[in-house]
Amino acid sequence: MPDTTTMLDLNELPVHMLLPRLQAREVSARDLAEACIARTEAHEAEIGAWTTFDAAAVRAQADELDAGPLRGLLHGIPVAVKDIIDTADLPTQCGTPIYAGRTPEQDADCVARTRAAGGLVMGKSVTTEFACVGPGKTVNPHSLHAKEVHTPGGSSSGTAAAVAACMVPLGFGTQTAGSVIRPAAFCGVVGFKPTFGVHSLAGVQPLGPTLDTLGWLCRAVEDAEIMRAAQLGEAYKPLDADGPYRIGYCETPDWHSARGAAARAMDTARTAMERAGAKVVPFDLTPPLTHLVEDHKLMMAYEVNRSLADEYRDHADLMTDGLRALIEEGETVSDAAYKKALKAAEAARQEIARLFDEAGIDAILTPSARGEAPEGLSTTGDPVFNRLWTLLKLPCAAVPVLDGPAGLPVGVQLVGKLNRDRELLTVAKFTEQAFC
Amino acid sequence: MPDTTTMLDLNELPVHMLLPRLQAREVSARDLAEACIARTEAHEAEIGAWTTFDAAAVRAQADELDAGPLRGLLHGIPVAVKDIIDTADLPTQCGTPIYAGRTPEQDADCVARTRAAGGLVMGKSVTTEFACVGPGKTVNPHSLHAKEVHTPGGSSSGTAAAVAACMVPLGFGTQTAGSVIRPAAFCGVVGFKPTFGVHSLAGVQPLGPTLDTLGWLCRAVEDAEIMRAAQLGEAYKPLDADGPYRIGYCETPDWHSARGAAARAMDTARTAMERAGAKVVPFDLTPPLTHLVEDHKLMMAYEVNRSLADEYRDHADLMTDGLRALIEEGETVSDAAYKKALKAAEAARQEIARLFDEAGIDAILTPSARGEAPEGLSTTGDPVFNRLWTLLKLPCAAVPVLDGPAGLPVGVQLVGKLNRDRELLTVAKFTEQAFC
Repeated sequence: MPDTTTMLDLNELPVHMLLPRLQAREVSARDLAEACIARTEAHEAEIGAWTTFDAAAVRAQADELDAGPLRGLLHGIPVAVKDIIDTADLPTQCGTPIYAGRTPEQDADCVARTRAAGGLVMGKSVTTEFACVGPGKTVNPHSLHAKEVHTPGGSSSGTAAAVAACMVPLGFGTQTAGSVIRPAAFCGVVGFKPTFGVHSLAGVQPLGPTLDTLGWLCRAVEDAEIMRAAQLGEAYKPLDADGPYRIGYCETPDWHSARGAAARAMDTARTAMERAGAKVVPFDLTPPLTHLVEDHKLMMAYEVNRSLADEYRDHADLMTDGLRALIEEGETVSDAAYKKALKAAEAARQEIARLFDEAGIDAILTPSARGEAPEGLSTTGDPVFNRLWTLLKLPCAAVPVLDGPAGLPVGVQLVGKLNRDRELLTVAKFTEQAFC
Repeated sequence: MPDTTTMLDLNELPVHMLLPRLQAREVSARDLAEACIARTEAHEAEIGAWTTFDAAAVRAQADELDAGPLRGLLHGIPVAVKDIIDTADLPTQCGTPIYAGRTPEQDADCVARTRAAGGLVMGKSVTTEFACVGPGKTVNPHSLHAKEVHTPGGSSSGTAAAVAACMVPLGFGTQTAGSVIRPAAFCGVVGFKPTFGVHSLAGVQPLGPTLDTLGWLCRAVEDAEIMRAAQLGEAYKPLDADGPYRIGYCETPDWHSARGAAARAMDTARTAMERAGAKVVPFDLTPPLTHLVEDHKLMMAYEVNRSLADEYRDHADLMTDGLRALIEEGETVSDAAYKKALKAAEAARQEIARLFDEAGIDAILTPSARGEAPEGLSTTGDPVFNRLWTLLKLPCAAVPVLDGPAGLPVGVQLVGKLNRDRELLTVAKFTEQAFC
């Protein structure tokens, strides 16, 4: 179904439409904050996007921004902060009772950069347990009127739901396997996972340090670029997505697990991109890329085991069975096996760079998830279409494409070259526009 | 851009999603009315969809419905009533100062049928002057955050804007040239103009009696079928839109006046329908069909001249220049010329039936408007892609397809066989679903 959204209230507007009006002070930070607060208060009970939300604190930040000079690109933009990311003024509880009530001493780097650019913290959004297994309370906003509730995906569950429900235009997530791209896909919003290592993780709970990547979710690709520029302190220039682009169509070795709606989204995206002038060519993965999903699982289990060693030792009773099992699985991975996987990953990174060059492509078009969000809240879905790209450290963007049989969103993923994050976003914007 | 709408509030839901919950009394008429009232009160100042809106009267109707037995298919559905359609409890002013304050003695047939089916009158929606020229105050809801405001189209301006802005899920319009399909296209909603003569016009201000047709606007094709069943007292059966369908792709002789976005919408619709399994074949109009737009203009001028003769005689000073010019143009049309056009129209109706049969098609795919809504409120746009089909008496449906360069909606029109209104809606639903 085409987009029949009528954006009337300020909370419904994407960042790139708010930006000029906030910068010109035609819209105050308080006006926008009130619209976001009203939407949040109206729907938080049924969606459960937040662990900590304090309207008075949001208003105070907005008033301070309105009273002072323009701070930067995000002036007045309310941002959801995933609850594994430290904030000095609000608890950071990592989705676990182990950290109930924990309030850090200072902001994570990404939060500090957001505030420096004029963004305000809307609240702490629900994460799965340690951004890993163990779903939170959040419901996919697209399933509120469906027969059953569906998961918003995870681990960045609350941010995805809050952005989709227009409680905020923008929010932080993190991805170790598929924790930004998958919830973005399930909630029908744009998700962006930058190249590994570009954005500081200081003040973010570690899970798998060679994989953990800061990312963000929003409702337009342009908004992802605005956040990217704000985080790096770059001057913002709107994306020029005219192309022409050459795109590699990549089903990956796990294509058999994609459901019909995901296949339809891939086909729809390919057709729309071709009609918009892109050349879409087959792009097949070669060894060692074909084994990376297994390598990723092994590495992640090993690293989670180390990252959460203290918590496991002292509070295993406060962990879900799923998390305990993963930590224990990590215990069985030998150092040699882990090092072998690290080496394979490094070889795979060389190989994907070679394939990109050989095919002469700007980006890969690949599924973002197996299909619509699964029913119920007992799982946040399978990251099988995300592990590979996370391990490769490549920038990834989720773009919504269509509604599936249950009426929930299904999208595609664009994957770019290492450290070519802005270029990847131009292709994602081209994809988004191809449906216009 | 794909549909990223998250429907959370009751006023955002289409009729077919509300219906089971209203019928099961899980949602009360008052609940839904309050959501629609809240949306209306929040945005009426900037959109101007209503000439008469009385929240207390809406609440009273809702409470009466909640206190009594289920009345029918529309139980609890708030409906916008174009202000050329009589209502016993609210003024009906036809968009002209000539009828300022006029309150009819009884409901128009369509309003009575709506109330009998449990629908409630949300208010009287803005019409152009006598549903003809002379735009009203209404602003296209999609242009509120654009650089300039754009027309919602007309003459059913207020209904289209109110439905698009989620103030109501459903509303009445009427079409003599393009007054249902064009505003639906401009506002990105579904518009349905049934076969001429099927639905009573008793209590509706006449404009061109051989052309005037009752229609309605909503946000899903299924909703148009629900209203059709409710108006005719038929049992409602959900549309089965599985096909297979054979569709005639028809640019019409006025294709040269279509802008790029309309051409892109046609191409996108064709591709999506083909991918969904339809066979789309070229469908060209033959004489006398190629001359019908001119015939329609002549007939409409002649009929408007007769319909508004008294008003012109007594109150020409209260008419806009545009309306006076049309009435005066009608004065110059000879009876012979009018009769010749009537005859040509009759021949054209035979010819289109023959072409439908010859091509073996279920419906025609054709533009709904020249492109996005024009900027400003001085015109409601050109009905050049609607006159033909109105004159042919055929059922027509507008379906949104994409957003144009200014960010406003652009759609396509499906045209069905005479008196095959439900069948046409199945094709429209197939079209709508082809984008999923």
